[in-house]
Amino acid sequence: MIRFDCDYSEGAHPRVLAKLIETNLEQTEGYGLDRYCKRAAELIREKCGRQDLDVHFFVGGTQTNLTFLSAVLRPHQGALAAETGHINTHESGAIEATGHKVLALRSPDGKLKAEQVRAAYDGHVHDETHEHMVQPKLVYISNPTENGAIYTKAELISLSEVCREKGLILYLDGARLGYALCAEGNDLDLPTLSRVCDAFYIGGTKAGALFGEALVIRNRTLGADFRYILKQRGAMLAKGRLLGLQFVALFEDDLYFDIARRANRLAAQIKDACIRKGYGFLTPSTTNQQFPIMPDDVLRKLAEKYAYSYWQRIDGSHSAVRFCTSFATDEDAVRRLVSDIERA
Amino acid sequence: MIRFDCDYSEGAHPRVLAKLIETNLEQTEGYGLDRYCKRAAELIREKCGRQDLDVHFFVGGTQTNLTFLSAVLRPHQGALAAETGHINTHESGAIEATGHKVLALRSPDGKLKAEQVRAAYDGHVHDETHEHMVQPKLVYISNPTENGAIYTKAELISLSEVCREKGLILYLDGARLGYALCAEGNDLDLPTLSRVCDAFYIGGTKAGALFGEALVIRNRTLGADFRYILKQRGAMLAKGRLLGLQFVALFEDDLYFDIARRANRLAAQIKDACIRKGYGFLTPSTTNQQFPIMPDDVLRKLAEKYAYSYWQRIDGSHSAVRFCTSFATDEDAVRRLVSDIERA
Amino acid sequence: MIRFDCDYSEGAHPRVLAKLIETNLEQTEGYGLDRYCKRAAELIREKCGRQDLDVHFFVGGTQTNLTFLSAVLRPHQGALAAETGHINTHESGAIEATGHKVLALRSPDGKLKAEQVRAAYDGHVHDETHEHMVQPKLVYISNPTENGAIYTKAELISLSEVCREKGLILYLDGARLGYALCAEGNDLDLPTLSRVCDAFYIGGTKAGALFGEALVIRNRTLGADFRYILKQRGAMLAKGRLLGLQFVALFEDDLYFDIARRANRLAAQIKDACIRKGYGFLTPSTTNQQFPIMPDDVLRKLAEKYAYSYWQRIDGSHSAVRFCTSFATDEDAVRRLVSDIERA
Amino acid sequence: MIRFDCDYSEGAHPRVLAKLIETNLEQTEGYGLDRYCKRAAELIREKCGRQDLDVHFFVGGTQTNLTFLSAVLRPHQGALAAETGHINTHESGAIEATGHKVLALRSPDGKLKAEQVRAAYDGHVHDETHEHMVQPKLVYISNPTENGAIYTKAELISLSEVCREKGLILYLDGARLGYALCAEGNDLDLPTLSRVCDAFYIGGTKAGALFGEALVIRNRTLGADFRYILKQRGAMLAKGRLLGLQFVALFEDDLYFDIARRANRLAAQIKDACIRKGYGFLTPSTTNQQFPIMPDDVLRKLAEKYAYSYWQRIDGSHSAVRFCTSFATDEDAVRRLVSDIERA
Repeated sequence: MIRFDCDYSEGAHPRVLAKLIETNLEQTEGYGLDRYCKRAAELIREKCGRQDLDVHFFVGGTQTNLTFLSAVLRPHQGALAAETGHINTHESGAIEATGHKVLALRSPDGKLKAEQVRAAYDGHVHDETHEHMVQPKLVYISNPTENGAIYTKAELISLSEVCREKGLILYLDGARLGYALCAEGNDLDLPTLSRVCDAFYIGGTKAGALFGEALVIRNRTLGADFRYILKQRGAMLAKGRLLGLQFVALFEDDLYFDIARRANRLAAQIKDACIRKGYGFLTPSTTNQQFPIMPDDVLRKLAEKYAYSYWQRIDGSHSAVRFCTSFATDEDAVRRLVSDIERA
Repeated sequence: MIRFDCDYSEGAHPRVLAKLIETNLEQTEGYGLDRYCKRAAELIREKCGRQDLDVHFFVGGTQTNLTFLSAVLRPHQGALAAETGHINTHESGAIEATGHKVLALRSPDGKLKAEQVRAAYDGHVHDETHEHMVQPKLVYISNPTENGAIYTKAELISLSEVCREKGLILYLDGARLGYALCAEGNDLDLPTLSRVCDAFYIGGTKAGALFGEALVIRNRTLGADFRYILKQRGAMLAKGRLLGLQFVALFEDDLYFDIARRANRLAAQIKDACIRKGYGFLTPSTTNQQFPIMPDDVLRKLAEKYAYSYWQRIDGSHSAVRFCTSFATDEDAVRRLVSDIERA
Repeated sequence: MIRFDCDYSEGAHPRVLAKLIETNLEQTEGYGLDRYCKRAAELIREKCGRQDLDVHFFVGGTQTNLTFLSAVLRPHQGALAAETGHINTHESGAIEATGHKVLALRSPDGKLKAEQVRAAYDGHVHDETHEHMVQPKLVYISNPTENGAIYTKAELISLSEVCREKGLILYLDGARLGYALCAEGNDLDLPTLSRVCDAFYIGGTKAGALFGEALVIRNRTLGADFRYILKQRGAMLAKGRLLGLQFVALFEDDLYFDIARRANRLAAQIKDACIRKGYGFLTPSTTNQQFPIMPDDVLRKLAEKYAYSYWQRIDGSHSAVRFCTSFATDEDAVRRLVSDIERA
Repeated sequence: MIRFDCDYSEGAHPRVLAKLIETNLEQTEGYGLDRYCKRAAELIREKCGRQDLDVHFFVGGTQTNLTFLSAVLRPHQGALAAETGHINTHESGAIEATGHKVLALRSPDGKLKAEQVRAAYDGHVHDETHEHMVQPKLVYISNPTENGAIYTKAELISLSEVCREKGLILYLDGARLGYALCAEGNDLDLPTLSRVCDAFYIGGTKAGALFGEALVIRNRTLGADFRYILKQRGAMLAKGRLLGLQFVALFEDDLYFDIARRANRLAAQIKDACIRKGYGFLTPSTTNQQFPIMPDDVLRKLAEKYAYSYWQRIDGSHSAVRFCTSFATDEDAVRRLVSDIERA
């Protein structure tokens, strides 16, 4: 059985692991105050091209989302998000557990449009009973989205302009950010993200780290007393240097982007095989996640040798599924999968 | 200016007020442990035809909803509700503030169907990632709905059967329950409600009381330690007898139903005038709330003499609005409104 | 049985009730936006001698406390309070239910001293691990305290100075504020309170209203979007005018203070009887609550005719109890109690 | 600078790290459903001598505490804990952030006594106003305590008996459990713990793992739907096998206890040096944490070469500090420290 069901089936990229091994017996301060966390934050600020950024490290994405949102929202404020947004669907109500409503907006590809956000905000403000409703205060977007779609620079800047006009916080969930920034058709980069977003996180768990997400906060008033809340949510790692070390490994030689590029390239081979077979896709994707719509009997056959994620039923005999690649995906394995798809 | 915009523009029905006046200087225990709360609970149990009911009194509906839901849900559990459900729209995120997600289902008239609930529950259970999602545990319905629609006995029994089969708690928000139970076409009554619902509340605020809602809990395991949570949510009234007294007044001679019947009858006169003018309705209603769709210029004209609630825009020249009647609605005022509608 | 166990055994002062009766059928806007709430707020601003005050009305004290504290604290912040403070003992964890720790400080009489607050704040800030601890942000005091003690002007000003120096919010729970401001030995008044506190509430429930507390917020940045949170906590009364009307009745002719003065005077008669018998007191009080320490057999005897609150055991044969007077306390009843104490 | 300030200054024990290295590129299921988590759970059940135990893995202690407590408490329930308990002092209000009060009891050494728990419970139940107070429902203890004290078997059994009699949940925070179970004077073991506690966790982070805590739940009704809540609190690690692997390494050859024994032995050398110098101790400890009371000038001198934790001021010229040993503590370093203490 070869796993293509997700991008967190293996441990860490060998160079990430090497960093942990070589520093294992060094003594450092705890709780993220060590030299490696400092160095990782510096590297990230360099890649973002600005010094005025706070960087905090987390173990996982749900933890990052719930900690940031609960840190910046007042009790009556909620987050606008696509219906398919991770915080709205796959975090077991983590945001609500901190007291805040997710205000879901419809979106076929998981992206929010500037006009949609404007309409939601204006609709709220102009409603005579707005004091009886949750106040939209933060815009949560994912790049790539949960469906593999990516934002263009123009789309993100439009969103950002609406947010600034309306006093909304723009927050980007980058669980798979590397794959988006290295995708065909992408014109975004870290400097742009750190200019237009109030905060975003750079996902490590799904991109070659054992675990780890780097939250970047541009708007520093949002970051006041942030470490208290990090601790309160159980997100302050005792041996915090483990996070710092991994991000040093990922960013000191652009390994993060190398990993993403390679995974995207392998995913494109799977995509192309599907296209050649005439299969459609749930959403177009140029990232490491592909969502082909395939006949159920083909899927059953493939399931004997490969793990994929079942996504949704399309009709009586077709389903959309997800194939993922990662830092560890074997080129041979992809070749075999491609050939099995083509022969199906 | 005559107000038809809501059913809480005045104080209390004279007989409710009389009860407060005549007992004003009596001394009683505080916090709802007095003889009047006991008597009101007894009366409600009698009307419901069963003795195994816990009755708790609240000052308002949002308070009732948030206290009950937070008392019976575990942290990962949420409430299925119609998108238009009061807890999903007009309680400023009160349920989320207690940590729970409202799982919104689409519904044109605000009613939930048994099949919809079954599908939502089954969809959750059969999803491989259900541990990553909010678990549906409670079904929140309103009768009448926020749009004035009412449940039939058959619909409610179907819902109840699905709930029992799936282990879901069925909770009915009866902010305007009297109007539903006295509406043309209704075949529900308190004994049926207290048999099929796990809990429901009988709204007083919008039905002739100064304030007050009586929560009826049939499933007593749900009611364990309930008074602690009542206190914790700021819902335990020091002079609790004020709630008991009002419900005694409303239920000792069926005043509650007399008020509802009369208000429904007056609302029907407004409805008939609209029908005669050929106006459509947002949703059909036989309760004290009517939602006609009227030309904007007619509405502007009426607004000079009458207050109504603006509901939503229908097209470039028509809007849906709400006209409400209450215990205090003057028959003459209705006659004048009817005549002004007809002349418009 | 004559009740002296609390000050909420009866309904409302006749003049408060009269106001409700005479306006009962008037139509007003809902949710506290009516002319009576506006008038009551104006009256309170006049009594406080400043125009820059926000006034919001609540049904009860726990509701007021939990709404205000949750509106102004960020998630990692807590409230310093005396161990005996109402929020720390008798609100069923209402503050914690909104996510905030009560940081309890020892105090024999329930008052906090400026130096105590300074030490708690400095201890926090200078602790190297302060990010791992709850940050003190609000100082909660009660006047009178739960034990009947009152603050002097000098004490309150000292507290206020520490709070401003340290950026702490000073909040005063005035559930029985009238009794404090009219107590023998008091030198505080509403203008002083509204100058030195960031917020405080004027209790109505225990001072002649059916129910109602008026929250006064001086520091207006604390009051931003306050009505959303009022609604979210279930504290926005549909027929909000009921609160406005009662405070108009209490403040338009200083009825509030007349009620307090009279109750204090009657309580002093009970106190004097105890002193004449040589009984000690748990804490000295010049307010409507008296906490004498009496022999258990005397208490048993009195219990045949009078209700009092049992407070705590002092030794094998003595207990501290509470006797309360209110707007409705009968002078004859006090005379009989005094005589029964003296004969005991 | 040699660090004795805590037991999380280094990475992982070499054998723990080796396990991560050798399995790095294996593919497994995510979210803790992999074979290594299963194997680690089996090993722990074996060591505990019972099969009816649920085992869940967490990244850190605060996360474990807040997830378990919020999973098992209803909103009005709180946790009894020593004033010095970690949840009461050093988790930034994590428990309160989930809505629950920590009910602090005084304790010089950080241990709770059975009689103290009984008194707290009985005091609550017999208080007439108990519905106005937080209900004690869980007893939180730490072994060793935050001060290094350990429970005897008799003490723990007494606590357990009170808890069962009163329906209280007994939960043991074992952040440093290994050190307690291997301490001189200890008569507890895992089978006893898993018999008398409803739940406890076996700390890995401070005992040789990179990170990781194993929560053991004996009372399975407490564990219902636990993984939803694990996810909700951001505690479900995507590459969950990292936790499983580390606990396999720690428990397959009793490495966990070897690490603890060695660290305790080295700590005893530091302790003995202090005793020889006549220094007292804040609390007696036979674990890897020692809390000597030393002259400030000696401490200043030692600080030039060693890191220790400042604990508290004792008098004008003496302070209590903490020296910690860990899996990585160098024997030579201890020898040098001992000699520097002796020469001081």
